Amino acid sequence: MLRILLVSNSTQHGQRYLEHCSAEVARHFGGAGSGTEVLFVPYALADHDAYAATARTAFEAMGLRLRSLHEVEDARAAVEAAAGFFTGGGNTFRLLKRLQRDGLLEPIRSRVRAGAPYLGTSAGSNIVCPTIRTTNDMPIVEPESFDALGLVPFQLNPHYLDPAPDSQHMGETRERRIREFHEENEMPVLGLREGGMLHIEGAKMTLCGPPSLRLFRRGQDPAEYASGSDLSFLLGEVVQA
Amino acid sequence: MLRILLVSNSTQHGQRYLEHCSAEVARHFGGAGSGTEVLFVPYALADHDAYAATARTAFEAMGLRLRSLHEVEDARAAVEAAAGFFTGGGNTFRLLKRLQRDGLLEPIRSRVRAGAPYLGTSAGSNIVCPTIRTTNDMPIVEPESFDALGLVPFQLNPHYLDPAPDSQHMGETRERRIREFHEENEMPVLGLREGGMLHIEGAKMTLCGPPSLRLFRRGQDPAEYASGSDLSFLLGEVVQA
Repeated sequence: MLRILLVSNSTQHGQRYLEHCSAEVARHFGGAGSGTEVLFVPYALADHDAYAATARTAFEAMGLRLRSLHEVEDARAAVEAAAGFFTGGGNTFRLLKRLQRDGLLEPIRSRVRAGAPYLGTSAGSNIVCPTIRTTNDMPIVEPESFDALGLVPFQLNPHYLDPAPDSQHMGETRERRIREFHEENEMPVLGLREGGMLHIEGAKMTLCGPPSLRLFRRGQDPAEYASGSDLSFLLGEVVQA
Repeated sequence: MLRILLVSNSTQHGQRYLEHCSAEVARHFGGAGSGTEVLFVPYALADHDAYAATARTAFEAMGLRLRSLHEVEDARAAVEAAAGFFTGGGNTFRLLKRLQRDGLLEPIRSRVRAGAPYLGTSAGSNIVCPTIRTTNDMPIVEPESFDALGLVPFQLNPHYLDPAPDSQHMGETRERRIREFHEENEMPVLGLREGGMLHIEGAKMTLCGPPSLRLFRRGQDPAEYASGSDLSFLLGEVVQA
């Protein structure tokens, strides 16, 4: 049974790392104080030691433990034995390239399909989708392909930003970028605003966190879903990538 | 001799398409009223007919002519015979994928190296660089590779945006994205603000348009160059991609 928590952003303005989602994160990994050891994937940032230290501090404050993938001898064995996963944000291209290079996509996918809880923030949420085609990140490195974990049948756009009505900047708005995506692809795109989370448990998906979610479908007007909405219907759809 | 005009954005807020750079564009193609026929590359947007019509209107207002690549029978022959090129903005991944698929990168590169003037706006400027690794666009489609025309030995970031000091949004600033690029790559990155242009004539490169340019180098603080600056030194550098 799938157990996935997808968070838009790891840090909410003015709060500590993972503070805004700590209740959901602790519950996801067996409860605060449970001591569950989660395997951390630090590859979206360049400084793995510093990143693991930040994540470990937040996890230990919840009474959980954290082991970072870059610290283990045998990455594949660590993935196969992991009680759960946390993939942090940063650059999605860098993250995906490293997981492809190390051959870790398939082992992570298998463990999560077998029921190991997965937490993703930002880039770590992007890679749960079929591809990384809806990331906001700069393509600073070239992965083998854009294909990612494919654990859900939709695309996510984290840090979703509404158009600023008074902007004079001529770069594309986020909504226009997603419209361009739908000129080329069929897959629905979920605009997950900052503070928003998707909680998946088996066949059920719920929108958590304060903001509403914006759902984009090819050829349709975007639709808004309020916090608490049951979005399970999006898990059942089989759509051409 | 290279003759390249790289424009950050095709439309300046409150002005018509290409209006803010029309003097430079007309001069680039033999002068207003010269009747030069320029080959337009419309592939960064989905609607090629509409895009070509917009570009043609702007070119005809300058007394130039425009033929769109999507209207010709033999694209390769049209490229080889072209008196000049204009590649418009839109999505850089879509643009590059199409040029790769049609085998047009090498013929365009050869013609421009042989002296045919090239104009790029936004995505059309990005593809003049060695790779598209510093585009702002969403990776809505997957090109064969990120390798582009490689006519200049630096990377460009069009629509460069300074960090907003009061923003509460936790997505990466443009400066932070470029810093991430330099965690992985050596190549200098030129942040070209809206209204900015780079004019290349042989071994000479000049910054035109009102805004200053921000130059990012790996391991150094960013540097600002005022409008009118001679940036020829950036053409002579040989740097590892």
